[in-house]
Amino acid sequence: MVTPNSAPPSRILLGPGPSMTDPRVLEALATPPVGHLDPYLLQLYREEQELLRGVFQTHNEWTFAVSGTGTSGMEAVLVNLIEPGDSVLCATNGYFGERLADIGSRCGGNVDRVTRPWGEVFTVEEIETALKKKRYKLLTIVHAETSTGALQLNIREIAEAAHKHGALLVLDTVTSLGGVEVKLDEWDVDTAYSASQKCLSAPSGLAPVSIGPRARQVIQNRKKPAASFYLDINLYANYWGGTHAYHHTASASLHYALTRALQLVVEEGLEVRFARHRRNGEMLWNGLVDLGLPPLIPLDHRLPVLTTPQLPEILDEARIRSRLLEEQNIEIAGGFGELKGKVWRIGLMGYSSQPQNITRLLDALLLMLST
Amino acid sequence: MVTPNSAPPSRILLGPGPSMTDPRVLEALATPPVGHLDPYLLQLYREEQELLRGVFQTHNEWTFAVSGTGTSGMEAVLVNLIEPGDSVLCATNGYFGERLADIGSRCGGNVDRVTRPWGEVFTVEEIETALKKKRYKLLTIVHAETSTGALQLNIREIAEAAHKHGALLVLDTVTSLGGVEVKLDEWDVDTAYSASQKCLSAPSGLAPVSIGPRARQVIQNRKKPAASFYLDINLYANYWGGTHAYHHTASASLHYALTRALQLVVEEGLEVRFARHRRNGEMLWNGLVDLGLPPLIPLDHRLPVLTTPQLPEILDEARIRSRLLEEQNIEIAGGFGELKGKVWRIGLMGYSSQPQNITRLLDALLLMLST
Repeated sequence: MVTPNSAPPSRILLGPGPSMTDPRVLEALATPPVGHLDPYLLQLYREEQELLRGVFQTHNEWTFAVSGTGTSGMEAVLVNLIEPGDSVLCATNGYFGERLADIGSRCGGNVDRVTRPWGEVFTVEEIETALKKKRYKLLTIVHAETSTGALQLNIREIAEAAHKHGALLVLDTVTSLGGVEVKLDEWDVDTAYSASQKCLSAPSGLAPVSIGPRARQVIQNRKKPAASFYLDINLYANYWGGTHAYHHTASASLHYALTRALQLVVEEGLEVRFARHRRNGEMLWNGLVDLGLPPLIPLDHRLPVLTTPQLPEILDEARIRSRLLEEQNIEIAGGFGELKGKVWRIGLMGYSSQPQNITRLLDALLLMLST
Repeated sequence: MVTPNSAPPSRILLGPGPSMTDPRVLEALATPPVGHLDPYLLQLYREEQELLRGVFQTHNEWTFAVSGTGTSGMEAVLVNLIEPGDSVLCATNGYFGERLADIGSRCGGNVDRVTRPWGEVFTVEEIETALKKKRYKLLTIVHAETSTGALQLNIREIAEAAHKHGALLVLDTVTSLGGVEVKLDEWDVDTAYSASQKCLSAPSGLAPVSIGPRARQVIQNRKKPAASFYLDINLYANYWGGTHAYHHTASASLHYALTRALQLVVEEGLEVRFARHRRNGEMLWNGLVDLGLPPLIPLDHRLPVLTTPQLPEILDEARIRSRLLEEQNIEIAGGFGELKGKVWRIGLMGYSSQPQNITRLLDALLLMLST
């Protein structure tokens, strides 16, 4: 119960998200909310949009936060872009690439996959070869695969290949946005989505999305309305902009918090923030190597914000995770799918990415691995 | 900006929702969140479910809160119950009845409507006559129509008629839950959904849903997965219960707040709470009559939590609403659709339903109507 007698535990959140929340963001969250059409909130949206454009590095007018978790952002993009029967190519090298394929199918898309084993990433050439097989409307790819810790490189070249073959590029930036470089305009990405609770360190519940000009045209020229009313991007655009027509009762509380979190990103500076994530990632990697748990992902495509140390087969990894949580209040996550039992997933995202958290984790692991 | 220099205004929220939030709920909201699979959160869910069953007055095991606003609850119910080609009968006497029909169509349902002018409600006989025309899989009806202020009576008899003709009853309780009597089990309602930010007075962002045994069977026996992954109720059930399998990153913050708000509902007592809403509704009605703005809805089906006073044609109603907001920090809403310009919508929901708020509103209106 959320009562004084059984307060929620104070966790150090080093899993794949949510990350920890800056006290200034929690303060914004707790501000008494205004209504969803209050002039104050509509003005806040304008600032939130500008801040989101800043972190996405885009000028896309259609940049806003969908009222749901990161998965709602993924679904919003697909359900608006796909009409039944459209061909969709999904690059899958982990759980979230596969989730895009699942949702693409549910939206009525004819989904083909180009695959790589979990933990690997794609070359531009293999993506282009796959694009040649059929005329695809969409190519989906994950920038930072949360299930493996792999960072997909060469997004600009992949976007170029997609466009050459007439496809739009959908980029999953759930785990990258705010932690590693994301440059939608320079890379010519058609649409991207993310989540509030990872490297942006706001509470979960909002999914930033950005829709570029080509994708916007597709959405505006649909033959039929999207299968989802709740995630209808045309209706979102009318609520955030245009006539501010009522669509759903957006949560002022979550927008206060996300906007505050985005202000803190700007205050820190994107480049400084990326360098901090990189530096702390390296500190963790070195410590893990010393413990005999080297990262699975090769350095050239290793994600600094989510590390997957390889675990010896004899290790009772679930028990160590439980002990970390119960004895030390530290959350890390297990692997899943192809990597279940083989790796942990240790996140250093946003406010969680601090040296003292890494030290606490490594000290606790040293103790537990030696007993 | 949510900074010390431009703090959000402190509004008295007397619109159709969100309602105001009890400081104790805001305190819970601001508690540092745990992860979405933390044992603490999974235990909180059990309590939240019990509390939700209490306010819905049901024993339905599948009672939980969907990660989105009330509209996501509406869509979750429909997208899981409807398979393409299913016949759906939507009783529409206002905006939200019509929204159900829109979403039903988007889900691939063959939607027929039985209609009443805005502000009126249905007799059991007209519903039954409509049900006889075709074999419908679903009947949808709105308990408390937020666009008109009308309360649909005889839900038990309507459920009986639906079942007699082989249809499931979907009941919209967005504006009624926690403010007027809702008895899912006694009325034999198959599925209902609501929203966190109305008479429950939590922040927006969660949609309580409850799925009864017949509806659950339909959902479990679907031929194809639901068109939505994000709102797939089978996956929700596996996350809230069963193996607690990862589905989406639920917002611990919002669940802390909703659970706290539900505890306050129980602390007050449902009957006492309904009586408070009724008493304060009557106080408002009397004041509005004195001002020459009598409620549109006849007393026998007038909703105590949302009142729609009739406005003289010569009144510049939009200007008065602006002045209320700007000069008095009081939010009320205008009418829309068929009632645009003809009524206001004044909500007295949850924490907003307090005599001093009514006095402030009536005093402000008296001043503005006379100048």
